[in-house]
Amino acid sequence: MNDQLLLKNIRNALIRLEETIIFSLLERSQFKQNQPAYAPGALGGVFGTESLVEYMLHETEKIHAGMRRYSSPDEHPFFTDLPAPLLQPLRYTENPLAENSVNVNGELLQAYTGTLIPALCAPGDDAQYGSTAVCDVACLQAMSKRIHYGKFVAESKYQGAPERYDTLIATGDRQALDAEITDKAVEKALFQRVANKAASYSGMFLETHLAEAFQTTVTDIYRDIIVPLTKRVEVDYLLAAKR
Amino acid sequence: MNDQLLLKNIRNALIRLEETIIFSLLERSQFKQNQPAYAPGALGGVFGTESLVEYMLHETEKIHAGMRRYSSPDEHPFFTDLPAPLLQPLRYTENPLAENSVNVNGELLQAYTGTLIPALCAPGDDAQYGSTAVCDVACLQAMSKRIHYGKFVAESKYQGAPERYDTLIATGDRQALDAEITDKAVEKALFQRVANKAASYSGMFLETHLAEAFQTTVTDIYRDIIVPLTKRVEVDYLLAAKR
Repeated sequence: MNDQLLLKNIRNALIRLEETIIFSLLERSQFKQNQPAYAPGALGGVFGTESLVEYMLHETEKIHAGMRRYSSPDEHPFFTDLPAPLLQPLRYTENPLAENSVNVNGELLQAYTGTLIPALCAPGDDAQYGSTAVCDVACLQAMSKRIHYGKFVAESKYQGAPERYDTLIATGDRQALDAEITDKAVEKALFQRVANKAASYSGMFLETHLAEAFQTTVTDIYRDIIVPLTKRVEVDYLLAAKR
Repeated sequence: MNDQLLLKNIRNALIRLEETIIFSLLERSQFKQNQPAYAPGALGGVFGTESLVEYMLHETEKIHAGMRRYSSPDEHPFFTDLPAPLLQPLRYTENPLAENSVNVNGELLQAYTGTLIPALCAPGDDAQYGSTAVCDVACLQAMSKRIHYGKFVAESKYQGAPERYDTLIATGDRQALDAEITDKAVEKALFQRVANKAASYSGMFLETHLAEAFQTTVTDIYRDIIVPLTKRVEVDYLLAAKR
């Protein structure tokens, strides 16, 4: 099996991404909710119908696309109208995934704006829209990467039992596929580990009640957004993969 | 005195920035040195004489300038040819600094590329130039913000003893000004605190020998780059401020 598909390697990558996600959420939590930064078209002019955060994300993705970020199989853009890479293509170690175009960033952005920000940040407006948007881009990119790693997880599981999966895929039974990919013990350990990390990192510099609130929020984000979207990617990928 | 000049408030901002700096350095340390990303003109074409990292920083600053990042008195760009803000100017709480154009980002970029990266990252090339450059931008922006906070520190100290400082400023004696702004006990506590934080954060997920190396590197970065450049900003600001 391709090294990138060894569950041990995937798990190490996902565990390391927990730090990236928790750090970026901690950074975002410094600022208030700043709802005007998420209002479509609220800033008018050059932003058009985009919110300030969407504009920042879009412009950032244009630069990163130039750096060939989205030619890597573990990166997925939020926007589709991005320029071609300015850099020569990398000789990537062989892409171990089957051909697919699964991308749940639309759902992620919606959950981020609608659920995550109100849970993570104090209500109100501190006018730090630029800093807010910079943090949002970092959070969204880290979470997107983590969620779309589901493709590697799914491919690894598939290759471990192709016949069993082929049968489920043929029926198109999403619920059965979801049950097949789910490991409740792993999920439980994940939530516990993330809760511990969130408490430890934030506890080093936030007051106790703020660190406790952050711990709860991060655990909720994993349980309500990151894990469900990762599993959604796994199932979508299994159903969409052209073999 | 303006709230932004209370040493207690400045110190809290600087302490909080330690997390931002340490997190961003931890993120960068995942990747190898990737020297080609710092070679001027090495990538040719659209990058011109810029290195890939300079290009990424430059493009990022163009977006952030549009978000009026650099109209804030605590933000300083690395490039001078940036577009005007797209957003209406913020009604900032009064700028408490005297008029000045002090900016040591050129020195910071040089120290970052020449000293910091070789100390922080494993030698070699993992071809992750895009991720490298994204991390570099985050590190450089966090360190720049911290270093230029020296202006607030210097203004606060000045307002605490204007006559003493005016006398030193009149002589233009940089060494005497440097001695006047230096508090060895505060510096010692800073190095200790930063070492503890670096060890604690990295110790949560790096192997012991890597966490120890990271602790040493972060302490060195504060002692050899961040603190000297902050003091350089303080002295430059005192000498340059138009009162």
